[in-house]
Amino acid sequence: MSFTEKLNIAAAKNNSLVCVGLDPDTDKSSKTLFEFNKSIIDSTHNLVCAYKPNSAFYEALGADGIAQLKETCDYIKSTCPDIPIILDFKRGDIGNTNNKYAEFAFEYLGADAVTLQPYQGIQELEPYFEYKDKGIFIWVKGSNKGSEEFQNLKVDGKPLYEIVAETALKIGNVMFIVGATYPEELKRIREIAGDDTPILVPGIGAQGGELEPMLKAGLTSESKGLIINSSRGIIYAENPAQAAEDLKTQINQYR
Amino acid sequence: MSFTEKLNIAAAKNNSLVCVGLDPDTDKSSKTLFEFNKSIIDSTHNLVCAYKPNSAFYEALGADGIAQLKETCDYIKSTCPDIPIILDFKRGDIGNTNNKYAEFAFEYLGADAVTLQPYQGIQELEPYFEYKDKGIFIWVKGSNKGSEEFQNLKVDGKPLYEIVAETALKIGNVMFIVGATYPEELKRIREIAGDDTPILVPGIGAQGGELEPMLKAGLTSESKGLIINSSRGIIYAENPAQAAEDLKTQINQYR
Repeated sequence: MSFTEKLNIAAAKNNSLVCVGLDPDTDKSSKTLFEFNKSIIDSTHNLVCAYKPNSAFYEALGADGIAQLKETCDYIKSTCPDIPIILDFKRGDIGNTNNKYAEFAFEYLGADAVTLQPYQGIQELEPYFEYKDKGIFIWVKGSNKGSEEFQNLKVDGKPLYEIVAETALKIGNVMFIVGATYPEELKRIREIAGDDTPILVPGIGAQGGELEPMLKAGLTSESKGLIINSSRGIIYAENPAQAAEDLKTQINQYR
Repeated sequence: MSFTEKLNIAAAKNNSLVCVGLDPDTDKSSKTLFEFNKSIIDSTHNLVCAYKPNSAFYEALGADGIAQLKETCDYIKSTCPDIPIILDFKRGDIGNTNNKYAEFAFEYLGADAVTLQPYQGIQELEPYFEYKDKGIFIWVKGSNKGSEEFQNLKVDGKPLYEIVAETALKIGNVMFIVGATYPEELKRIREIAGDDTPILVPGIGAQGGELEPMLKAGLTSESKGLIINSSRGIIYAENPAQAAEDLKTQINQYR
């Protein structure tokens, strides 16, 4: 089954476009990373369309953190195997280095999808494309203000982020990441990508992105196609299940 | 001591601009990653100005690989503490994610420098800049052919890689990475960066970069300022020490 099929089934079953970012922070919780994640997964797995662990939060603890990232992925696969795992690691390199990163994501962790950088060129990402059933998310437009430094530069009148998206669609079977804080850019990417391309949208809540303009800009004609991530807004809520449910409901009002 | 000072002392002591890429590959050697690295370090530490472990080769083995990456860094720091460690992990993300990656590199591993992506914007890399004594290498021009997809696009007549370098110099205390296969681009980056900015140059040997044009383009007026990486050409040579010595000698002919 392809990543998109798995995603669509999970989104339909839970009637949800919510993705929970599993970014456990030892500065904010005394639980182990895995125990923290386990309680989030137990209480939200029937409310989400995907989980997105951010590799950095595990790497900060070194080998032990990586072991807990694997434990987290294994737990999702054993307790709610219908929920896809998007490994957010934003790698981008060349040649055989990409083979090794793909091994980490898809073979060691068993993730269903990864997030990748575009700057090194899309053709360089071939080792990821060889995993035909996996989702490959190219980071075309960040949610951060600093993303304007380069991503909005114009090449012959066209912003770089659009060129990246168009190039990527020509080369591989890709999906995109666009920050919720840039609804106009999201609209352009949806136009370029068409309705069959899932778009991962980080940046609502803590980062300032608003739901309504983002959903109007990014939903497909069938009111689907978005994976709306919330990390801190859910995992550090007093009641994470309630926070996930609330977000799901708010999103579904606009669908 | 700053990274640049540490680098210059090592380069002067060993009279070498050679950096050995520690990219141990279990597909090519039956030794453990650490045992493989140990034998390379033991035989080359008086011939190099830096070591550059590529994180991907360790991550592919998961938690155990990361433990061996740490063991490798610890070994360098205990047996040849004057040789700086450049962690090649090409991360680039936003906000607190960068804090966590910096923790991995500088606190868990104790690396002296890191390699970073530019696409998310340079101002976003502030958490790395806060480590004042560490080296921050921005990947401005890859050694790969695919780097031309975006890096050579022109914005108002100027290629993107130049804009990235100029922007980065305005924002932070940065160094650069430029592929040996692009000597003209290297010359432009040296002009932009001036003589006080080390430039890491991958791509000689297996990737096709030639020494003479690269050195003419990138050496400072004092015949310094380059960190010339070789990975496969040294670590899989029949005699790695001899291969490192030969490369050092070939480079020094042009200095």
